[in-house]
Amino acid sequence: MSSKPFKIAIAGLGTVGGGVVRALSAHGAELSQRAGRALTLTGVSARDPKKDRGFELVGWTADPLELARGDADVVVELIGGEEGIARDLVTQALKNGKHVVTANKALLAKHGSELAELAEAHGVTLKFEAAAAGGIPILKSLREGLIAQPVAAVRGILNGTCNYILTEMEITGRPFAAVLKEAQALGYAEADPTLDVGGGDTAHKLALLSSLAFGTRPDLDSIAVEGIAHITPDDIAYAREFGFRIKLLGVTRRIGDGIEQTVHPAMVRQRSPLANVNGALNGVMVDAGAAGSYFFSGPGAGEAPTASAVIADIVEAASGGPAPVFGQPASELQKLTPADGKAAVAPWYMRFEVLDEPGVLAQIATHLAEAGVSIESMIQRGRAPGEPVAIVMITHETAQAAVERALKAIAASDKVRSRPCMIPMEAA
Amino acid sequence: MSSKPFKIAIAGLGTVGGGVVRALSAHGAELSQRAGRALTLTGVSARDPKKDRGFELVGWTADPLELARGDADVVVELIGGEEGIARDLVTQALKNGKHVVTANKALLAKHGSELAELAEAHGVTLKFEAAAAGGIPILKSLREGLIAQPVAAVRGILNGTCNYILTEMEITGRPFAAVLKEAQALGYAEADPTLDVGGGDTAHKLALLSSLAFGTRPDLDSIAVEGIAHITPDDIAYAREFGFRIKLLGVTRRIGDGIEQTVHPAMVRQRSPLANVNGALNGVMVDAGAAGSYFFSGPGAGEAPTASAVIADIVEAASGGPAPVFGQPASELQKLTPADGKAAVAPWYMRFEVLDEPGVLAQIATHLAEAGVSIESMIQRGRAPGEPVAIVMITHETAQAAVERALKAIAASDKVRSRPCMIPMEAA
Repeated sequence: MSSKPFKIAIAGLGTVGGGVVRALSAHGAELSQRAGRALTLTGVSARDPKKDRGFELVGWTADPLELARGDADVVVELIGGEEGIARDLVTQALKNGKHVVTANKALLAKHGSELAELAEAHGVTLKFEAAAAGGIPILKSLREGLIAQPVAAVRGILNGTCNYILTEMEITGRPFAAVLKEAQALGYAEADPTLDVGGGDTAHKLALLSSLAFGTRPDLDSIAVEGIAHITPDDIAYAREFGFRIKLLGVTRRIGDGIEQTVHPAMVRQRSPLANVNGALNGVMVDAGAAGSYFFSGPGAGEAPTASAVIADIVEAASGGPAPVFGQPASELQKLTPADGKAAVAPWYMRFEVLDEPGVLAQIATHLAEAGVSIESMIQRGRAPGEPVAIVMITHETAQAAVERALKAIAASDKVRSRPCMIPMEAA
Repeated sequence: MSSKPFKIAIAGLGTVGGGVVRALSAHGAELSQRAGRALTLTGVSARDPKKDRGFELVGWTADPLELARGDADVVVELIGGEEGIARDLVTQALKNGKHVVTANKALLAKHGSELAELAEAHGVTLKFEAAAAGGIPILKSLREGLIAQPVAAVRGILNGTCNYILTEMEITGRPFAAVLKEAQALGYAEADPTLDVGGGDTAHKLALLSSLAFGTRPDLDSIAVEGIAHITPDDIAYAREFGFRIKLLGVTRRIGDGIEQTVHPAMVRQRSPLANVNGALNGVMVDAGAAGSYFFSGPGAGEAPTASAVIADIVEAASGGPAPVFGQPASELQKLTPADGKAAVAPWYMRFEVLDEPGVLAQIATHLAEAGVSIESMIQRGRAPGEPVAIVMITHETAQAAVERALKAIAASDKVRSRPCMIPMEAA
């Protein structure tokens, strides 16, 4: 074992930061052995030094940036946010020749390639296993494991809050708003849930998976994002009837020479591994082309799982040389060429809220026919003359563009209430 | 990129070896970029140099040991076998300061700690991701990912042949022997299937997972092994009725200060991820203690998946320093203390073939009562006075030792035909 200890400074002592300190303290000897040198916590930064965290604050400072100037070998950034103090801290630490470990998906999704270049220029590493899918070693698996054959696609359930809400909606039959409120009360959802339920958090994580899978620079801007707020208990019940479940997926896939990245609710077959990722768990399916399909699941958030990913990164920073941040030199990362997957075909689930009046169905059918959308099956349950009722249709294999065209025309009708819902039915 | 190429020699050009050569040839530029230096195949050894493999044999030699003496930086051992030429080649290569990559589970399970010491003494690395679960990066995940908290248990479906046979038996209702024969005809099972269906291959792989999960030396000898040849279509049908599936599991878990390693058919709940690993796929569930449970699945064999794992190891050997083979210095690996899990309780499935005569059930019930085994439910379908019929029982939570004691007494009865079958029902 090297006689030189590896000095660790941690900025941000919330749930994850506290978990990292506790794990280092509980398993320090074994982790040091794995790292090949003693791991020593030498500095921490947190807003409130008086708060009882159950451990002593070694080398506390109010100013996180001080950690970038100190004698630490690695700075662990757990403050969060894509700009401001987190970005400054990571930038300064790398410039000062310190390794950086972070769980900050927003920062990496937005500034990942520029920070990777900075790390490589200064001969240090920048690690972020905890930034996507919590404790699941999926970034490592994409960066170092599934590299022999070109990856075709990655599909992931990457947001535990959305998955918890969709699972609860299925179990209880209650609507989105009620389940969200309960999730907030239980601490499973933030007071402002927009980033989670709107799909933005999934997009951050997807940008990182994309980069590692395809050797491209993280490209948040080309991700088409749709959240789950419009999903109704009826949609979930119909999905079940057809043998599917509704999940919020982040999907990145090769189409021709480009990459299509989307975040959207999708129907996945009940027997598929992704359909069986329930509650707050995360799951990722990697289609590694000729090498086959691989599935990973586990806790995607929470103190111990996320801290576990941070710890693995710290040990690797301590033991290894400066490996390329995204698996290959940052200068070699290609700019991602966005692809339009709207020509790719799938069966689609569509739901319309319409006035129960003669002629409405004929009107919808006409719009569908004009857009070239052909219907495999249709369900209208119940009658309520003059009142809104739901019509559900499943299309034959149809391009997204055609479905969108039809829905736009249908939505314009005064017989159609609220925005029509369309959800692709995944083959996998 | 380093100007010095990384020279690769491959011994054994069967399915996997051929796949490695083809992948290096097809994706050499990208893989070299990941490795940080040019990957160059400089030598191969295979029995028949004339065989058409679809690629040229660069630097062919009839004697694999020559590769250990040549100028290669890494020797890739794909010959197989726990002794003989494979062991000699790996030993010589390490002694000559060459990295070694191998898919040889038997060699590592038997001689892993001694070879790890040799590698570390010579400042090189010994990698074997392909030795367990094919393309699934599970060894990497255990060695480098799930390290922050002590692992509690690893459960795996590690043999594709057994899983294929059990899956086919469930789908078709046909008996073991018929499905095995068909699997042999299709090339899914070896002419001599003993190592697969007897559980030995699973044991080799389990020994490696155990070592990485618990920081112990691989210990093949303390694994209790039971295969699948005695499983009947009735067992599978009953399992289904109870909401379970039968899988051949390798299980390694902490019990007190020791580790229990077993290979045995187990009933797993239909909704559990392991139950949904079908056909020739592999699946591994890691109970990472406080860090939660993680599940991995994918192809566990075949040219491209296995070659993919070998390639990842080659790239890592080329780019990295000599990391500890089992995640920590070989000298620090503990001797595994075998634990006896027979006191741990589970519900058990039991099947007896008995003569349909008055008093037989009373006799069985008496033996069970004497051993302290209490029965939750019993099924006897059909009547055939004087002929053998099957009686199936599910116990309440019972220690394995008690079930074994009861079955030994019951098996001694002349009313009981063939060996009674006992299968634990896993909680997971």
